[in-house]
Amino acid sequence: EEADAMINMSDPYANDPQRHPVLTIRTKKPFNAETPTSLLVENFITPTEFFYVRHHFPVPDVDLSSGDYSLEIISDDEKKGLSLNLDQLKTAYASHSVTASLQCSGNRRSEMNRTKPTKGLEWAQGAMGNAVWKGVRLRDVLLDLGIKDSDENEHWHVEFEGLDIDPTSAPYAVSIPLSKAMDPRGDVILAYEMNGETLTRDHGFPLRVVVPGTTGARWVKWLTRIEVARNESQSHWQQNDYKSFNPSSDWDKVDFSTAPAIQEMPVTSVVCDPQDGETVELKDGKLKLKGYAWSGGGRGVVRVDISLDSGKTWHVAELLDPVKLSRQWAWTRWQANLPVTAKETEVWVRAVDASYNTQPEGMEHIWNMRGVLAVGYHKIKVSLKAD
Amino acid sequence: EEADAMINMSDPYANDPQRHPVLTIRTKKPFNAETPTSLLVENFITPTEFFYVRHHFPVPDVDLSSGDYSLEIISDDEKKGLSLNLDQLKTAYASHSVTASLQCSGNRRSEMNRTKPTKGLEWAQGAMGNAVWKGVRLRDVLLDLGIKDSDENEHWHVEFEGLDIDPTSAPYAVSIPLSKAMDPRGDVILAYEMNGETLTRDHGFPLRVVVPGTTGARWVKWLTRIEVARNESQSHWQQNDYKSFNPSSDWDKVDFSTAPAIQEMPVTSVVCDPQDGETVELKDGKLKLKGYAWSGGGRGVVRVDISLDSGKTWHVAELLDPVKLSRQWAWTRWQANLPVTAKETEVWVRAVDASYNTQPEGMEHIWNMRGVLAVGYHKIKVSLKAD
Ligand SMILES: [Mo]
Ligand SMILES: [Mo]
Repeated sequence: EEADAMINMSDPYANDPQRHPVLTIRTKKPFNAETPTSLLVENFITPTEFFYVRHHFPVPDVDLSSGDYSLEIISDDEKKGLSLNLDQLKTAYASHSVTASLQCSGNRRSEMNRTKPTKGLEWAQGAMGNAVWKGVRLRDVLLDLGIKDSDENEHWHVEFEGLDIDPTSAPYAVSIPLSKAMDPRGDVILAYEMNGETLTRDHGFPLRVVVPGTTGARWVKWLTRIEVARNESQSHWQQNDYKSFNPSSDWDKVDFSTAPAIQEMPVTSVVCDPQDGETVELKDGKLKLKGYAWSGGGRGVVRVDISLDSGKTWHVAELLDPVKLSRQWAWTRWQANLPVTAKETEVWVRAVDASYNTQPEGMEHIWNMRGVLAVGYHKIKVSLKAD
Repeated sequence: EEADAMINMSDPYANDPQRHPVLTIRTKKPFNAETPTSLLVENFITPTEFFYVRHHFPVPDVDLSSGDYSLEIISDDEKKGLSLNLDQLKTAYASHSVTASLQCSGNRRSEMNRTKPTKGLEWAQGAMGNAVWKGVRLRDVLLDLGIKDSDENEHWHVEFEGLDIDPTSAPYAVSIPLSKAMDPRGDVILAYEMNGETLTRDHGFPLRVVVPGTTGARWVKWLTRIEVARNESQSHWQQNDYKSFNPSSDWDKVDFSTAPAIQEMPVTSVVCDPQDGETVELKDGKLKLKGYAWSGGGRGVVRVDISLDSGKTWHVAELLDPVKLSRQWAWTRWQANLPVTAKETEVWVRAVDASYNTQPEGMEHIWNMRGVLAVGYHKIKVSLKAD
């Protein structure tokens, strides 16, 4: 035990869990790693061990048997507070399952970096996955606290605080609009299971927030405190990170207060197979393509278009997963099988969501110094071998 | 009276109301006309007499004193039906006011036609306006009918039928998702007032549906019947119109069943002043620009960007109207005052909404044969005179 403590003192990351070797590591300490997209596209539900991991700090290690863990829930208002351990939470509220995709704000940043370097992890297209989350509805907990559906509080926020702490001991904390938390169709849950099993440490054991349709930064892991407040979180991660700016902004002249914190995400799409730069053998003269598409806010993907001639003509891809127009939190995988005669081709993909929003053509006009929301058309070059 | 009847027999449009001469007429019978954008941008609330008019048929003429008018409300379900005249409706339910912009699906179609001709009215950028609507909440009426907030019925629809009829006597009818109708934050109302006055005939007297954040085609005028149904409306306007397709689709090979009916609209923005092709006198070497921006689904406009160099650099415009991130049904006017030295310039504008969705760069990749949702960057050319 003393030896363990010494290891921890010299390296705060020494107690991090083991990870699957298939993950592509972006940084080791803190651990950040993504799923190779050729693997990602194989399953509607991403297996937990292949699911991307995005940490800011060392991974907390919660021992439920010690009795130390509790979730505190308070309100700026005159409401009573709640304090619950995990068993009490599970007993007090009905369980609810949600199939929802989780995506990092910085997914696809490496594509944006080709326009001009940005500051952030060099994600390819695998900082996204889809899982079944089980927990209790945050709405039920907040109703219990005394929060009401009301036009008075609709622009209030709910702040989540994790057990992960920065070197100054400040915990990771962010907030979402109270209207999202209270929306009966918003499906925000406090999850203790992922894909039918107890949450792993890397995904927030014992409890994480699941905010379907909203960027990953708000899905606080190792959740220990919830505060209903008149204002949004004043944390670094809410105020001075996870925001996008005009492409002519840069670090020397940016005012973070001018942009809203990213919540719902814009529509995106990716070619997962083949990969950029690959040589592909055609079958019956056709190129087979597979990928995913997704939009924030529960807006379903209504169409995925592919162009092999830089946007002159477009082919409609086949959608492989069922799609609802609203409350559609999961991604939609797609495939296409297109005749090609050239020896090389550039493949463009773009999706359209239920509000008929679509993606920008490139990364240039949405470039931002933080490299977030890199949702331009995904463009890959492949070499082709006739069959 | 006999003479009137004869006039009507020879011309079903003879009884249409008088309109303000400032409107730019696109078709006279049925009457379709838009607001010049230089006038439009002057007011946050568009004066009723300047508000664009979009009709499919002759304008119904309802005489409330005759006692003939009623609103019928029924459900596919086992629920009781309701039948109410206007006084009964006003007495039975609390009044609710909403400030919401109304936009035709075909607004800006003329810009899309430059890529390739489409089929529809040749709208410039004035088939949009913003008004204060007063009426009763549709949610309250449906609760009274016995409809419940439930996951069971969330993909049901609510169909609206108007008194306007096509030459075969089929009424104009369309539907919206029941989830939108029942959403306490959806603000769908049955409106009897526009801008503080009784609804005019051209805007749906005595009653029209207001569906904030949703395309104008669903805001049924001269409302006479509401049906809560398991499926969406089977009408022509729901099924075979007001949909967008892949740009490589055309009339000879389109399958309307493959695309969803337009409901929430994508983000858009327009330069209203100066106009395309205008010669502008600079002030202190600066070009003053004014316009509007808006997004569907209640997503507020968080930024409007202007480029004078084809997207190489972008300037942030000043937003002139207050913006909430959600439940923001009204448009946002903007202005910018930018230094220019050239004798000619092309101005590009694009907006970003609360989900960080933005506009496509041009109309080419969103071109569709019906010419709807023409939301590419607005690009105008102006000649400049130094001061
Ligand atoms: Mo993230
Ligand atoms: Mo319309």
